[in-house]
Amino acid sequence: MKIAIMGFGTVGCGVEEILYKKRKSLIKNNFDIQIDKILIKNTDKQRFPHQKDLVFTDDFDEILNSDVDTVIDVTSSLEETHERIVALMNSGKNIVTANKAVVSKYFEELNELAVKNGVYFSYEASVAGAIPVIHPIMEETFFSDMNKIYGILNGTSNYILSKMETEGLSYDEVLRQAQDLGYAEADPTADVGGLDAMRKIRIVSSLIYNSKINEEEIFTFGISNVTKTDFEFAKDLGYSIRLLAKSALEANKINISVIPTFVADDFFAKTFEGTNAIKVWGENFNSYEFKGPGAGKLETADAIMRDLLRILAKREIKTFYDATNSFEVENNIKHKFYIRTTEVTDGLKNIIDRKKTSGENHMIVTKKVSLDELKSAIENLGQVFIAEIEEEK
Amino acid sequence: MKIAIMGFGTVGCGVEEILYKKRKSLIKNNFDIQIDKILIKNTDKQRFPHQKDLVFTDDFDEILNSDVDTVIDVTSSLEETHERIVALMNSGKNIVTANKAVVSKYFEELNELAVKNGVYFSYEASVAGAIPVIHPIMEETFFSDMNKIYGILNGTSNYILSKMETEGLSYDEVLRQAQDLGYAEADPTADVGGLDAMRKIRIVSSLIYNSKINEEEIFTFGISNVTKTDFEFAKDLGYSIRLLAKSALEANKINISVIPTFVADDFFAKTFEGTNAIKVWGENFNSYEFKGPGAGKLETADAIMRDLLRILAKREIKTFYDATNSFEVENNIKHKFYIRTTEVTDGLKNIIDRKKTSGENHMIVTKKVSLDELKSAIENLGQVFIAEIEEEK
Repeated sequence: MKIAIMGFGTVGCGVEEILYKKRKSLIKNNFDIQIDKILIKNTDKQRFPHQKDLVFTDDFDEILNSDVDTVIDVTSSLEETHERIVALMNSGKNIVTANKAVVSKYFEELNELAVKNGVYFSYEASVAGAIPVIHPIMEETFFSDMNKIYGILNGTSNYILSKMETEGLSYDEVLRQAQDLGYAEADPTADVGGLDAMRKIRIVSSLIYNSKINEEEIFTFGISNVTKTDFEFAKDLGYSIRLLAKSALEANKINISVIPTFVADDFFAKTFEGTNAIKVWGENFNSYEFKGPGAGKLETADAIMRDLLRILAKREIKTFYDATNSFEVENNIKHKFYIRTTEVTDGLKNIIDRKKTSGENHMIVTKKVSLDELKSAIENLGQVFIAEIEEEK
Repeated sequence: MKIAIMGFGTVGCGVEEILYKKRKSLIKNNFDIQIDKILIKNTDKQRFPHQKDLVFTDDFDEILNSDVDTVIDVTSSLEETHERIVALMNSGKNIVTANKAVVSKYFEELNELAVKNGVYFSYEASVAGAIPVIHPIMEETFFSDMNKIYGILNGTSNYILSKMETEGLSYDEVLRQAQDLGYAEADPTADVGGLDAMRKIRIVSSLIYNSKINEEEIFTFGISNVTKTDFEFAKDLGYSIRLLAKSALEANKINISVIPTFVADDFFAKTFEGTNAIKVWGENFNSYEFKGPGAGKLETADAIMRDLLRILAKREIKTFYDATNSFEVENNIKHKFYIRTTEVTDGLKNIIDRKKTSGENHMIVTKKVSLDELKSAIENLGQVFIAEIEEEK
């Protein structure tokens, strides 16, 4: 079996390492996998694969015109990779991808193309790294309606929040630490701004509701404004703060958001550092929970291996996602929220349940309002931090 | 597609309910599943299936000689069901079973028979109910060595322990409550004695180590002797008590046990009532964790549905378990233990680190010893309760 890999960054190296190191075990199970070619940008850069005679190329057409039947995508670009995946599918190649930006933005198109071309499209690695979540959820959709999914889906944000909580440090201090340790990128915007978690909640939510969700409809608020004050306020109420990605289907409306959340002492509050955590509610069980590493070299490669072996053994689930349901996105479920602001506008006044003032900061707990109502109430505010407050059980 | 079901107790009814209620969704995904016959013991008993024209029989041969290709086993008998599964496999029928007693006792034979007859043998429902654990672990074995698995695998025991902890009740009080609520059987021995958890840890451990483990080699100590005193002692040290099923492969020895354990404030300590929890360690990730309902009508039926659909769509993993590895069982890893006893023998004296006496009870914390050493130290004691003490992190 010949495959190709697009990209040879951390995760690509992880895939190559597993294929090399586990060759004996793979062959025992009839997986004689050869890497035909690896697509890279810079052919001058020295690389250190385990298999010494690996062929690298910077010419995409060599992959497109090769006889490999499955291509692993571990690139990080959006539009270029999207175009390439489309071309590969149209030439009959199965796709295994870790690229959540592409999967989220083009979910409907890529699933449709997979059906049209009779190829497999697998993306376990795009959500929650080594934790097996996409495939078990897919299996469940055939016979069980799931109506809610919550997750800590961005490791960088969780690292920052949990370190702020346990070590009492400021956002900037922890971010700098995280960047030094390689947990956060030089430009961490996509992570701390909630964009990365937004893509992941779009993917899993579309999958379980079989419904298109436009990225821009997802209420997305990141953690870059969080301060020690917020943690102190949360702690006084018995909470910690985590960035949750959530969706729930109620009365044919999809509530979907990425929002800092006051969490009580529970599954999510006990999620530390770069760990990811996912909780799914379905009709055959109250809920089940997964927790594990959400990123990393071998961790993400692990998820890719699952998809790859399923495809090569023809055990993969054929695409059934067709966005048949056209549920509207409307964040209409009512919650209490925490708002820290230096300015209290008239719109805000209407939703205040109680307020504490310290220096120039107003710390507000709102009445129960919908996220849509909150959104209009805060839209003219400058520096503001908000968090949903988890209901006490 | 025609199937048969053996048994029509709680879980069997759950399977019938899902097949009936989700028929539209199943057919949309090409699963036109007909229940050909249901095997029951008592044909006089009135039954209330959703599908009114279901055919019941008490004649096993009608199933054996039918043209169904897959049989779902939700019986609870051991030897009779074993014989029947063997006969069914030999006549070319795939088996989906929830019967952990059969799967554990005859794991090697049934896997071998499945290979010989080219049929599928699936048992997701035998461990941890709705939580998808067997199949993800199977996928992982192809390319990742897992060397440790811990779990809370018996819901009844966990219900009792967690209620004793949170409500300060005695063992007998909670057991009676649990029996009234249907969480515990009239004869709870298999659950509180650790037998049920022992079977489950045997199944998952054999699977990940690809090695036969005899049930009688697994050190099994249940919770029936636990008292409030034990919880108070544990609490003073910052622990709670849970019944853990554990195995670890170290230096070619399998350490494997079911034993009450002092757990700190963590994943397992936060597992309440009938919930099951599993933690797996592997070479591509530090660990991942699953938590969810370990039993129940629709919960267990959910796991059966996953297996059934995988088989019908020919997406199931072909049996690869062949017990190639012949690792010996030896509980040689050293831990501290808690022992409550009314008698301090010479054998015990040698391993005491510290001791507290209250009335006739001696509460002992041992030095670090292996479970094998502990076993000989306590073998002549009468009434005794023991627990492994989780290492502080």
